[in-house]
Amino acid sequence: MEKEKETREPNEFIIEGRNPVIEAFRSGKAIDRVYIQDGCQDGPIQTIKREARKKGTPIKYVARERLGQISETGRHQGVIACAAAYEYAEVEDMLRLAEEKGEPPFLFLLDNIEDPHNLGAIIRTANLAGAHGVIIPKNRAVGLTAAVARASAGALNYTPVARVTNLAAAITELKKKGLWFVCAHMDGESMYSLNLKGPIGMVIGSEGEGVGRLVMEKCDMTASIPMKGNIDSLNASVAAGVLAYEILRQRLG
Amino acid sequence: MEKEKETREPNEFIIEGRNPVIEAFRSGKAIDRVYIQDGCQDGPIQTIKREARKKGTPIKYVARERLGQISETGRHQGVIACAAAYEYAEVEDMLRLAEEKGEPPFLFLLDNIEDPHNLGAIIRTANLAGAHGVIIPKNRAVGLTAAVARASAGALNYTPVARVTNLAAAITELKKKGLWFVCAHMDGESMYSLNLKGPIGMVIGSEGEGVGRLVMEKCDMTASIPMKGNIDSLNASVAAGVLAYEILRQRLG
Repeated sequence: MEKEKETREPNEFIIEGRNPVIEAFRSGKAIDRVYIQDGCQDGPIQTIKREARKKGTPIKYVARERLGQISETGRHQGVIACAAAYEYAEVEDMLRLAEEKGEPPFLFLLDNIEDPHNLGAIIRTANLAGAHGVIIPKNRAVGLTAAVARASAGALNYTPVARVTNLAAAITELKKKGLWFVCAHMDGESMYSLNLKGPIGMVIGSEGEGVGRLVMEKCDMTASIPMKGNIDSLNASVAAGVLAYEILRQRLG
Repeated sequence: MEKEKETREPNEFIIEGRNPVIEAFRSGKAIDRVYIQDGCQDGPIQTIKREARKKGTPIKYVARERLGQISETGRHQGVIACAAAYEYAEVEDMLRLAEEKGEPPFLFLLDNIEDPHNLGAIIRTANLAGAHGVIIPKNRAVGLTAAVARASAGALNYTPVARVTNLAAAITELKKKGLWFVCAHMDGESMYSLNLKGPIGMVIGSEGEGVGRLVMEKCDMTASIPMKGNIDSLNASVAAGVLAYEILRQRLG
């Protein structure tokens, strides 16, 4: 038997799971094709079929085993979409987005987040907390893999993510454009007593190592999340969420 | 060659990774023995050896492959401790803990959180936000597995977790003891405008399904987290963190 043709092109990106695929269609993302597991007929699958027909996207019905081979996360829930590889945005796009919305810029900067679930959850939080983009470093940190896309629950389709060579240099550039930088750190001042309004970049470090020294030195403020317990630190994506929502609370107030 | 003796007793619990093992020792948990990978000598491993000697805990040096076989999460970082199986607490223990601390009770109630990473991260948040315990339902939800313990980053050693047959019934009982219940829900009132002080139970639903109807009907308030983005909801552990810290902010204020 001839070896089956590779299902995925080198530059393609796969989106796994019902909600992520529905979100991808609804966001207007160009989907090349959709794989659906034979026999899957429930509501969300019907929605996906409808969206695919509307956009003229080919649907391929495949056995469960075949989907398992295509899957990167093992949690495809009976559906996988192939799309053009995710394109990184530019930092300028984020500032433009803020300007279009008439809002002071609000950016997330992630210093070497290595866990794809955390990165995805943080992009999801950035979207919902009204941030205009997420900046990650090119080296060491995790990139935009299928696991990240899935954990982002569709937010990757809306929230621009940029990669920069040097996070400290990016901060220097953005300071020239009027942004202030706050870095989450347990030795900082309580976030509740800081003024976090206005154009702001929120810097979150990796689990374990925290924010690097060079990056921290560039920040204008260090904010601590009150810790009433026995252990050291929150999960990185939870910490990002808690600080981001304190920023949002102050922006709304 | 004779088959090697099973390393883990049926009622044992394994703790994987450097920080979780150090935390387990420091919390005074009874550790039966520790497996350390041959050749591991760095600082955290030295700390673990010191703690083990102090407590009289046997250390066994094993090859990387052997550790891989014992590991449940695949992320042991060169060290695994075996401890007596985690014991669930009683809800009464949590109320007693609050009383001892002279604080109004603050409990987390989780309605069918299925992802071990989320459950672990939420227990971690409960510890740091100063909650006195976490209540989970006996059925359907994930229990306290090694993956949960690891994601809790040691918080499982400090924060009591109770299992109840019926979450709605538990709420009814706790209301008699003066607790108010707030449930996270996107149709609720903004959490910033609710009074969340005093004895409180925070109810968080599963990803996807949210809080069940019967449980929600028992709650005194529904709190929404402001959503400025395009997608539906935050990751469950992020949502729990954001709401818990709004409760903490009000308690501290």
